[in-house]
Amino acid sequence: MNPRLDAIFKATRELFELPEGLVYLDGNSLGPLPKASREHVRHVIDEQWSSQLIKGWNDSGWIDLPQKVGDKIAKLVGAPAGSVIATDSTSVNLFKVLSAALEMQAHHTAQNPESAARRVVLSDTGNFPNDLYVAQGLLRALGDGPHGDGYELRMVEPEEVADAIDETVAVLMLTQTDYRTGRLHDMADLTRRAHEVGVLTVWDLAHSAGALPVHLDVSGADFAIGCGYKYLNGGPGAPAFVYVRPEHAAKARPALVGWMGHETPFAFDLDYRPAPTTDRMLVGTPPILAMASLDAALDVWDGVDLADVRERSIELSELFIAEVETLCPELELASPRDPQARASQVSFRFPEGYAVMQALIARDVIGDFRAPDMMRFGFTPLYLTPEEVVRAARVLETVLRDKLWDSPEYKRKSKVT
Amino acid sequence: MNPRLDAIFKATRELFELPEGLVYLDGNSLGPLPKASREHVRHVIDEQWSSQLIKGWNDSGWIDLPQKVGDKIAKLVGAPAGSVIATDSTSVNLFKVLSAALEMQAHHTAQNPESAARRVVLSDTGNFPNDLYVAQGLLRALGDGPHGDGYELRMVEPEEVADAIDETVAVLMLTQTDYRTGRLHDMADLTRRAHEVGVLTVWDLAHSAGALPVHLDVSGADFAIGCGYKYLNGGPGAPAFVYVRPEHAAKARPALVGWMGHETPFAFDLDYRPAPTTDRMLVGTPPILAMASLDAALDVWDGVDLADVRERSIELSELFIAEVETLCPELELASPRDPQARASQVSFRFPEGYAVMQALIARDVIGDFRAPDMMRFGFTPLYLTPEEVVRAARVLETVLRDKLWDSPEYKRKSKVT
Repeated sequence: MNPRLDAIFKATRELFELPEGLVYLDGNSLGPLPKASREHVRHVIDEQWSSQLIKGWNDSGWIDLPQKVGDKIAKLVGAPAGSVIATDSTSVNLFKVLSAALEMQAHHTAQNPESAARRVVLSDTGNFPNDLYVAQGLLRALGDGPHGDGYELRMVEPEEVADAIDETVAVLMLTQTDYRTGRLHDMADLTRRAHEVGVLTVWDLAHSAGALPVHLDVSGADFAIGCGYKYLNGGPGAPAFVYVRPEHAAKARPALVGWMGHETPFAFDLDYRPAPTTDRMLVGTPPILAMASLDAALDVWDGVDLADVRERSIELSELFIAEVETLCPELELASPRDPQARASQVSFRFPEGYAVMQALIARDVIGDFRAPDMMRFGFTPLYLTPEEVVRAARVLETVLRDKLWDSPEYKRKSKVT
Repeated sequence: MNPRLDAIFKATRELFELPEGLVYLDGNSLGPLPKASREHVRHVIDEQWSSQLIKGWNDSGWIDLPQKVGDKIAKLVGAPAGSVIATDSTSVNLFKVLSAALEMQAHHTAQNPESAARRVVLSDTGNFPNDLYVAQGLLRALGDGPHGDGYELRMVEPEEVADAIDETVAVLMLTQTDYRTGRLHDMADLTRRAHEVGVLTVWDLAHSAGALPVHLDVSGADFAIGCGYKYLNGGPGAPAFVYVRPEHAAKARPALVGWMGHETPFAFDLDYRPAPTTDRMLVGTPPILAMASLDAALDVWDGVDLADVRERSIELSELFIAEVETLCPELELASPRDPQARASQVSFRFPEGYAVMQALIARDVIGDFRAPDMMRFGFTPLYLTPEEVVRAARVLETVLRDKLWDSPEYKRKSKVT
């Protein structure tokens, strides 16, 4: 462990509420409560909504929160100010940017009659299934119909993506970090290959933003979306974010639009005219209580260098792998062994993984499970210590050695796994 | 005033935080803070997110909140349990149901080759412009393209809607209550006319839900959406709701879908299979802090009869009109004079309406303004008294008589009007 980092992350840990004795390895699914979020939500309720009522939109700047919060996120994902907006859910944002990217390609084809229409959205089987659902819903509506002349969602294995990029592809839609294993795609390399053959890229940063340095700008990514409630600690179901490469901001036309993305929302014109900026990715009224929590949670990152986060994240995950492989040889590492090839989580396979995870949780070691057999553990340097990582491995050893998981109570499935 | 109602609404007023001395006539834009919402949001932060972390999804039932909150709303809009879901914004929900309705019509045409394709979304110029923007964005993506063979948004004057319903129309998309004047469309009559010629209906209840009895079920409406932060007092940007007529629930296929609407969200299948219920209108992870506020706010309605709300709302608005017309003859009533023809707001026209409204607000009488010349006043019996209504009219008289509005500070436009 790099001792320089101890002091940095001892200080950031103080910014969170964490139950005594709990080892929380699920910040990749839901970040814990930043103390500042609790205070700020109270403030917004008690001093803004309560007393300012409708005036809060102007007097407390509620109307500008999507941009203000977006700018805080932009710094964490290597994006320029003004290119990121906090709004809606990752799914809704993915729908917007995917539809906008397809429209840009259709427009390009219409302007260049010699070029063949691009009808393929290329993705991989390691993508978060939700992203595939969003694409399926959109393409179904746009016409992936019975005549076979419509759009197609083409899925390949993750390692086959690079070779599958060709001139039939309109959009390459990928999640940078595999939600199951933490495996990283090379965003810059795949984006470069995509651009060489005229393909636009849409990146989901759900398990990347706040987990490691992300270089949206230098990678050349065209669009990106990401999550506010995982490594950004915005609270359950926090607003998500959307990035539009500045050169596309005035051209992108999502299928889903609304008054908050209008050039002059309060003129109440009958015709939609998109704002000339990333604001056009806004649709409805921003959710202020949820946005307030995320807004305050992002201040945890003030003065934190993501290179330090990455260094400590690798230290923690390497430590965990070493401990678990020594203590629990029956588990199979599902994550890449090379720390540069994975983000900030480690997963192990075990046939009874679900029950093992329930037994762990009952012993105050919190990870999660992904079907069919994947136990996931997230590493979040802002509030996770090396001592806790060692403790988690020891509890895991006990659960396995004593078959503590072999109990009906741990095999009963929860609604959310 | 009906004295029986005094006691009922004296009790409900106690459930809200209202600044001393303020006359709040803008609950149709943002409802005030219910005391229970403050307490419940604190509880969710301090006792759920803080200590349960990821376990809150199961242990505190977060995952079921869209349905639980939806069922509370269903009671207020005349809908059966299970037919309403709280989620996303009104705009996003409108996009879902409009796309689903168009898909149902396209499917019907494909099944009945003898019938002509229906390509028209019929709406009116009194619709909230945002709803028109949502339709424009969707139709643009579906192909209202240059060949003229695509979809069309047809707008007529509000009073011409009934006669414009014909067999070219796929969907009749209307807002029940005109956001400017409070004029009500006859939902049951227009829906009946629509169904007679095979048209599906989509109703926006933004200024209706919680303002007056709404009869979704008996009106035959096919789809509806509505707002959580106006008369339902859920907080700024609260989640909205979506209604699907039960007979359509297993058929409706929105263009925008996601994992929360999947038949088995946590199986992580690669293919989308919609839930067989209204759940298919869910997309991303529900925003729990915002949902908690709305959840608690809806308990204000426990034991409240919407017929009583309607009776008192008419008493208050009639009182306001009588006072203002006596005291301020320079104002022109923009709302229907017949109280049965308007919802729970009253609007007056005045060329300098914006400045007058700013002068009123500076004197603790809060209404709002809609371009070009409309001053809006909302009447919310849950927390508004007859005395306050009289006081508002008196302050308005003073502002006009002494030309207090004629000041540069009141003419400077705010970002949100």
